[in-house]
Amino acid sequence: MPQPYDRVFNFSAGPSTLPVSVLEEARDGLLNYQGTGMGVMEMSHRSKPFEAIIQKAEADLRTLMGIPEGYRVLFLQGGASLQFSMVPLSFLGEGQTADYVVTGAWGKKGVEAARLVGCVNVAWDGKGENYRDVPAPEALRLSPNTAYVHTTSNETIQGVQFAGDPSFESPLVCDMSSDILSRPVDVSRYALIYAGAQKNMGPAGATIVIIRDDFLARAPQNVHPILDYRVHADNDSLYNTPSSWSIYVCGLVYQHLLDNEGLEGARARNEAKAKALYDAIDGSEGFYRGHAEPRARSKMNVTFTLPNEDLTKSFVKEAEANGMDGLKGHRSVGGVRASIYNAFPQEGCEALASFMKDFAARNG
Amino acid sequence: MPQPYDRVFNFSAGPSTLPVSVLEEARDGLLNYQGTGMGVMEMSHRSKPFEAIIQKAEADLRTLMGIPEGYRVLFLQGGASLQFSMVPLSFLGEGQTADYVVTGAWGKKGVEAARLVGCVNVAWDGKGENYRDVPAPEALRLSPNTAYVHTTSNETIQGVQFAGDPSFESPLVCDMSSDILSRPVDVSRYALIYAGAQKNMGPAGATIVIIRDDFLARAPQNVHPILDYRVHADNDSLYNTPSSWSIYVCGLVYQHLLDNEGLEGARARNEAKAKALYDAIDGSEGFYRGHAEPRARSKMNVTFTLPNEDLTKSFVKEAEANGMDGLKGHRSVGGVRASIYNAFPQEGCEALASFMKDFAARNG
Repeated sequence: MPQPYDRVFNFSAGPSTLPVSVLEEARDGLLNYQGTGMGVMEMSHRSKPFEAIIQKAEADLRTLMGIPEGYRVLFLQGGASLQFSMVPLSFLGEGQTADYVVTGAWGKKGVEAARLVGCVNVAWDGKGENYRDVPAPEALRLSPNTAYVHTTSNETIQGVQFAGDPSFESPLVCDMSSDILSRPVDVSRYALIYAGAQKNMGPAGATIVIIRDDFLARAPQNVHPILDYRVHADNDSLYNTPSSWSIYVCGLVYQHLLDNEGLEGARARNEAKAKALYDAIDGSEGFYRGHAEPRARSKMNVTFTLPNEDLTKSFVKEAEANGMDGLKGHRSVGGVRASIYNAFPQEGCEALASFMKDFAARNG
Repeated sequence: MPQPYDRVFNFSAGPSTLPVSVLEEARDGLLNYQGTGMGVMEMSHRSKPFEAIIQKAEADLRTLMGIPEGYRVLFLQGGASLQFSMVPLSFLGEGQTADYVVTGAWGKKGVEAARLVGCVNVAWDGKGENYRDVPAPEALRLSPNTAYVHTTSNETIQGVQFAGDPSFESPLVCDMSSDILSRPVDVSRYALIYAGAQKNMGPAGATIVIIRDDFLARAPQNVHPILDYRVHADNDSLYNTPSSWSIYVCGLVYQHLLDNEGLEGARARNEAKAKALYDAIDGSEGFYRGHAEPRARSKMNVTFTLPNEDLTKSFVKEAEANGMDGLKGHRSVGGVRASIYNAFPQEGCEALASFMKDFAARNG
């Protein structure tokens, strides 16, 4: 079945597919946004129309996620990679320890950056079994009086996801880059949430930070202003020129989600999409093997292997010829990775599941 | 005369106006870029189509600016504000001094960030006369054996610009955010050039760094990877997900400039545009007063004051009613600022000059 605008099913791990209606709206305002006489990319970030854009984006994100009073929402740059450094530079003081729960490649990068700043305790590490699982609460070896606990809610490379919001006595910092807005979360459990936009929210360039006031108040003085959460909060994300186009498109995505049953709607759609693929894996009599333990299976990145490398190559190549792009797995896991973020359509998952059955029948 | 798409003349200091043909091209590929079945915002930054985009952007920028062998071109995030910190964090070592030439508000911010890292010598400071001038070479008080000299080629707020490329024995680092690509430069005089995209190149979100190999080699180990020029160079700007859409639009702008006589063409157009406005100032018999000394007048940001605050308000309001947007000056200078970057059209300058004459006649 041909897709609108002859689009393919884009299984990219990020940047990734966006809703067609959002793209159409972004397109239509590119030369003259709502009668302002200029496109969004060309607007001063201190102009009234752009202020309206960023304020509406924040308000809609607050509504969507149910962000309580007492939290600031920031639109920054630099992606999760800059957050890996900004978090310890602000919150891992001398003589303190931070606990990191490492469930995949991104959590590991967070540890590496934090170690440049101070003392890190790896409270759990899934590396021994190549990151297939998330820890049970009793398996964590937390430090007493830790500065914060850091988790990664979803690991894109391994396809491993926490089933829900963990709970800790210490401040919880979470990299939600790859599953933010894919399901409801209890924001009140977190001291700081960060996420690059380019998976579930919009184009690369914007990074969302949600930070609790009491945690923000712990940030020291004399941080470089561009790396200082307090400076960004005090300036309502306009300390310097923000990635304005990315923020605009994120706002369109937030509105689109609000128009489609919010995060409960997103969860239902994402669970149905993931089920189609995991059912295809589990029903293949071992031809496909899921990388993650069933309890840790990601709804965003479905990772699995085939019996050998030749079959994997054929699978990816044939899928691409059938309008399914971006399925090659990361080299550290091998096999196939199907990234099916919020905007990825159900019919793309059905198409892949159907192709998986057919391919296994022909090659099994 | 109505503008295409009912666009106004957008005098914003940045983000700022882009060429209509560039916006049209960006628009047309938003849902399906060149038959790939996806838009540029949705593409993996490690995909072949995006690799082609970033490689062509770099090649075209090299051609445009005549960047010699022995320089790396990086596409980063965070704007000039992040460069204010990254430069000293990498190149201002313990026991070293860096010289800063401060010709306006942005140079001052650079000094503030560098002081968080190490010893700064302000080699010249225009603050005493509210930044109206650039220094003569003999006025500079340079340190012996400085780590680098830092200049700001054009100051947007005050409208002060170096007439050409300065020359120093020490490595020269230059913030070219607001006049890059507006005229030819001799890149070989610089150790490091940086520029946010949002004035002459494209949408906010991308930051261009041009760095000489021998200077890059001085960067220390143990810098945070996201703040480490060497990491970005070793990964061809793909260490983390770049601001891919911004880079794409920058590439369209580079192609547009190549198609229009390159930087010599840009210089001729920019000089003609600025002349129209400075002639209107100089011909007003003192009604308008230029902020900058004539030898330091910016071709990018034309700053001037009116006899009083009421007239200034009327001027800005009437101009806006006549399709000329964004003329209000920065509070630190007052008056009017007309930002006329590369993509701003000659006819917009003619329209403003004509309005200036008419307004002065009615109110002088």
